[in-house]
Amino acid sequence: MPKLALVRHGQSEWNLQNRFTGWWDADLTEKGEAEAKKAGELLKASDADFRAAFTSVQIRAIRTMWLALTEMGRAWLPVEKDWHLNERHYGGLTGLDKAETAAKHGDEQVHVWRRSYDIPPPPMETGSEFDLSTDPRYDGVDVPATESLKLTLERVLPYWNDTIAPVLQSGKDVVIAAHGNSLRALVKHLFNVPDETITGIEIPTGNPLFIELDDDLKPVSVQYLDADRGKPLPELP
Amino acid sequence: MPKLALVRHGQSEWNLQNRFTGWWDADLTEKGEAEAKKAGELLKASDADFRAAFTSVQIRAIRTMWLALTEMGRAWLPVEKDWHLNERHYGGLTGLDKAETAAKHGDEQVHVWRRSYDIPPPPMETGSEFDLSTDPRYDGVDVPATESLKLTLERVLPYWNDTIAPVLQSGKDVVIAAHGNSLRALVKHLFNVPDETITGIEIPTGNPLFIELDDDLKPVSVQYLDADRGKPLPELP
Repeated sequence: MPKLALVRHGQSEWNLQNRFTGWWDADLTEKGEAEAKKAGELLKASDADFRAAFTSVQIRAIRTMWLALTEMGRAWLPVEKDWHLNERHYGGLTGLDKAETAAKHGDEQVHVWRRSYDIPPPPMETGSEFDLSTDPRYDGVDVPATESLKLTLERVLPYWNDTIAPVLQSGKDVVIAAHGNSLRALVKHLFNVPDETITGIEIPTGNPLFIELDDDLKPVSVQYLDADRGKPLPELP
Repeated sequence: MPKLALVRHGQSEWNLQNRFTGWWDADLTEKGEAEAKKAGELLKASDADFRAAFTSVQIRAIRTMWLALTEMGRAWLPVEKDWHLNERHYGGLTGLDKAETAAKHGDEQVHVWRRSYDIPPPPMETGSEFDLSTDPRYDGVDVPATESLKLTLERVLPYWNDTIAPVLQSGKDVVIAAHGNSLRALVKHLFNVPDETITGIEIPTGNPLFIELDDDLKPVSVQYLDADRGKPLPELP
């Protein structure tokens, strides 16, 4: 049975400043690096034989993957980076800190954007200093101006189906290092989590969600590798 | 015209101990990490637009690539790791330091193995503590027991022709982080360096060899990005 580990990147410079990050390319802090190494230790101690790795094109996820793989003694694994695993795009909220966002939009509205399934924040303004749509890493990509969790899932899922699932079905164990919302989208798909409850699922940083799958990629077991630091688990479908 | 940068990894733990390393997976020292970052700075300041990256499956080259790409702001580049870019396999010399090697084989013989084009050292003994042929990264690979520079070239070249050359010919600038001898093999091929003089070509660590190629991938210019720290350059063919 193939095994899948989902690793959420650790603290970034913008997490620390409480700013909406989304597609902005904030790097890990020292604490975030330590979380990545801790995840690597836990993955190394697991009974999986990881043979393929996937991450986003954002530095905080990429470096989480690199640091974890180094700790695992598996820096040699093929790592595929793809924007489909990027964090949810936070549109016009990108770059704002909590106080700025509340002053501009009100706490209640911000809560809706954060916790609803299908309501995206206002789009990023053209020419925003946080607009990365002309960055060379997105050549040929139709960069969104904002995303709900639903929109995030709608671009994560084709990548899962076309690229990651076939690797698991070939019998290889897979590790993914990504973001709170791209991983949440994957969990929603794998565990059939309803729209209403998915935003309540939150993978902790530095503590891989470890899933055994059957041949149809239906989860048959799920755990946090450090059970003591786990958050509520999705229910098996 | 496509551009190609060849980066030799910096100091490893075994370089420091003066041991023959070959396929052993010695990691970078702190000095080696600094050399990798310096190479990244130089690459960032160059006029190339790197879009693809290739390295070996050895940690010292992989981490050189990762550190350089991070410095360049290009951690998101696709990186392909392949054993064909590994260092020359030093056979039975692997793990020996200079004094041990001289005591066992004599200085003159060791000089022949290091500097001849086609004379491989004695093969690694089966069951040697330095034998990595059963490491999972080499699953399906016919791991050599020893290699001359000629044998190294004979496995670097097909990888160049089949995998790297087409990327350059598609118009993408390419960076390769690899090893003294796998890079020497590439230089021999690109610049038509004769067997007798190729071991005199040595790419310095942390100072990329920067080559502009024509559409047939014949070099039209060559330089070290830090000219002040360059060693003798290969002549244009």
